[in-house]
Amino acid sequence: MSIVKVKTEGGAYSIHIAPNLLQQVGTSIPPDATSVVLISNPTVFGLYGKTVLQSLEASGKKISVFEVPDGEAYKTLETLNSIYTFLLEQRLDRRAVIVALGGGVIGDMCGFAAATYMRGIRFIQVPTTLLAQVDSSVGGKTAVNHPMGKNMIGAFYQPIAVDIDTTVLGTLPEREIAAGLAEVIKYGLILDAGFFDWCEQNVASLKALEPEAIGYAVQRSCELKAYVVSEDEKETGMRAILNLGHTFGHAIEAGLGFGTWLHGEAVGCGMVQAAELSARVCGFPQADVERVRALVAAIGCPVTAPDLGTDKWIELMQIDKKAEGGKIKFIVMPGIGQAKSQTVPREDLMLVLKKTTQKG
Amino acid sequence: MSIVKVKTEGGAYSIHIAPNLLQQVGTSIPPDATSVVLISNPTVFGLYGKTVLQSLEASGKKISVFEVPDGEAYKTLETLNSIYTFLLEQRLDRRAVIVALGGGVIGDMCGFAAATYMRGIRFIQVPTTLLAQVDSSVGGKTAVNHPMGKNMIGAFYQPIAVDIDTTVLGTLPEREIAAGLAEVIKYGLILDAGFFDWCEQNVASLKALEPEAIGYAVQRSCELKAYVVSEDEKETGMRAILNLGHTFGHAIEAGLGFGTWLHGEAVGCGMVQAAELSARVCGFPQADVERVRALVAAIGCPVTAPDLGTDKWIELMQIDKKAEGGKIKFIVMPGIGQAKSQTVPREDLMLVLKKTTQKG
Ligand SMILES: NC(=O)c1ccc[n+]([C@@H]2O[C@H](COP(=O)([O-])OP(=O)(O)OC[C@H]3O[C@@H](n4cnc5c(N)ncnc54)[C@H](O)[C@@H]3O)[C@@H](O)[C@H]2O)c1
Ligand SMILES: NC(=O)c1ccc[n+]([C@@H]2O[C@H](COP(=O)([O-])OP(=O)(O)OC[C@H]3O[C@@H](n4cnc5c(N)ncnc54)[C@H](O)[C@@H]3O)[C@@H](O)[C@H]2O)c1
Ligand SMILES: [Zn+2]
Ligand SMILES: [Zn+2]
Repeated sequence: MSIVKVKTEGGAYSIHIAPNLLQQVGTSIPPDATSVVLISNPTVFGLYGKTVLQSLEASGKKISVFEVPDGEAYKTLETLNSIYTFLLEQRLDRRAVIVALGGGVIGDMCGFAAATYMRGIRFIQVPTTLLAQVDSSVGGKTAVNHPMGKNMIGAFYQPIAVDIDTTVLGTLPEREIAAGLAEVIKYGLILDAGFFDWCEQNVASLKALEPEAIGYAVQRSCELKAYVVSEDEKETGMRAILNLGHTFGHAIEAGLGFGTWLHGEAVGCGMVQAAELSARVCGFPQADVERVRALVAAIGCPVTAPDLGTDKWIELMQIDKKAEGGKIKFIVMPGIGQAKSQTVPREDLMLVLKKTTQKG
Repeated sequence: MSIVKVKTEGGAYSIHIAPNLLQQVGTSIPPDATSVVLISNPTVFGLYGKTVLQSLEASGKKISVFEVPDGEAYKTLETLNSIYTFLLEQRLDRRAVIVALGGGVIGDMCGFAAATYMRGIRFIQVPTTLLAQVDSSVGGKTAVNHPMGKNMIGAFYQPIAVDIDTTVLGTLPEREIAAGLAEVIKYGLILDAGFFDWCEQNVASLKALEPEAIGYAVQRSCELKAYVVSEDEKETGMRAILNLGHTFGHAIEAGLGFGTWLHGEAVGCGMVQAAELSARVCGFPQADVERVRALVAAIGCPVTAPDLGTDKWIELMQIDKKAEGGKIKFIVMPGIGQAKSQTVPREDLMLVLKKTTQKG
């Protein structure tokens, strides 16, 4: 088992990474917990619910299970409210612990439920998608969507543990693996050129989910994310580099309607766009743009953005959370393994959009 | 102007207390704010909106106003959602500042909106009821209600400033003043015997809202609450003493239907019940029980609890947030100016309920 420690002002905790770890989730329940609520969706619960339940039951606590419908469309205030109602019906007090079993949707929503039920109870992340394992379960961002914007309602709230079972990735559709690998590559691009090289060399093993390769990729991603988050829990500075490719990506997701492209797919494509932008505004070598494009394509993500129309692109990028005071800031790379936040001239942005979007 | 400093892990800020302070709220807006949203209800906005707006406009920021319906019945996820929608329609970013102008309902709900909009934006409390000035605006508890329980959804989230104008109390109904004074007395009971004496001696001036008396009562209450909160922001220990009278009080509020009695009225009565309980379980002198009863009556709060029936009482007290693991803990007083948390025998509780509730 690999252990990655996360330390933030909001709390310190460990990420445990190992094959077949679901069987040990029960050991993460703190002794003073009064009860445990396992929250999942029918897809994931159907596959892994029994294993996790068995492990939780060994903790000797009162266990209850709540399932929410599967899908980003249900990451809403309404579903959240159904979670609150369930917790209240079960008469759960402040020492109850939520176990979030699922992808980023379950993790984000359960994290926010934990952050706000009775002003905060403890929760454990058990991420089951690659994206959730390398990204959303680490760092304490929790949220639900609002009809007017993704993740607009949320909190910074840290779990007490993250239990990552890499074996469960075997039942994920190929597209989900590709989407998760986009975030893996991101860490190399913003912080660790050596890891980016490693990803290039191991792309076939990663796509095939070879245990050693995927285990290392998850571990290194968690380490890099944990490092960033410990420096800047609340995204007042450095943490913004994690948004490489995300301003473009969110615009794609929103522009096509959420769910058309997966988050990671949009981010994969967004990173190609960010690389092109970096070449224009901060000297990122054009040869490296092509390496980014090739690796994003190799993991199976799109590298050409949809044609949303220029006005729509601009509109969608401005409503994004990262837009402050009307100016658009982007995360750009002076080189592979380096990233910074920078306001970019509208002109350069236009040229990049022109170059990277599909011609209808 | 009196200034009370509050220091918590979640942030440090000042409470400003003075007559006619509404005219200076604009000076609390931080220079880097991109815009300001004033949130209030028609009652309070009708009385004081213009004054506050004028002061905010002097800050030179973009100002917008949002009114929510008046009343505890609207302290809901639904109203909260209407606030989010407004903030998004106004395209407010993370550097927007919310100004909450109103009583505890506005303050709690705006505080929670600020805590969760884009994972947290800054907000300023401008409390206009006595209860809000001495209690709810200080300490960072924010929340909305759930049909199954009051304040069940919320967060600990500190404002960046609290601006208290004592003049606005002049337009409050007498019952609201009485309810606020109940919380004032509470601080004396749990922490400061001298302040309790002072309240006994100045009860007429307080009821008449004489500026010097009410100014001092607000200041001392804020100091005492700030002290407790700085010791224990998240109510893991000492902060619980602020709940003196509240387990009984919440049961009364919920049992009669929220809004029948005002929160402070229920707490006033609850403190009499807590005093009786203290006499049984930790030696609180019976003579002091009578002083509590007399002072609660003198400020104009009820001292006899409604007859909810024993089963209902127990049920309502157990679903309360302070109930952990099924046992009922109460805040009790060994003497005036001292308080502690203690599990009490069911028998003593029964006798106190019998003694303090109205016979049908
Ligand atoms: N909090 C953060 O820092 C952060 C970061 C990135 C993304 N996110 C959020 O994460 C969400 C996306 O997460 P996601 O990509 O995991 O989507 P998801 O949670 O919707 O999961 C994708 C699909 O895979 C299914 N699934 C999950 N595990 C499975 C398994 N082991 N086998 C088979 N099927 C499985 C799910 O039921 C779902 O249908 C978005 O809402 C996004 O906003 C949050
Ligand atoms: N956050 C905390 O720590 C905390 C502590 C105690 C209570 N609370 C919460 O506070 C709420 C009760 O607050 P409240 O008693 O202020 O009730 P409230 O906010 O409903 O105000 C009472 C009434 O007075 C009106 N009003 C407000 N200011 C006025 C003024 N100056 N002149 C005339 N009318 C005015 C309001 O519009 C309302 O109709 C409850 O929801 C309770 O849960 C929170
Ligand atoms: Zn992402
Ligand atoms: Zn109170």
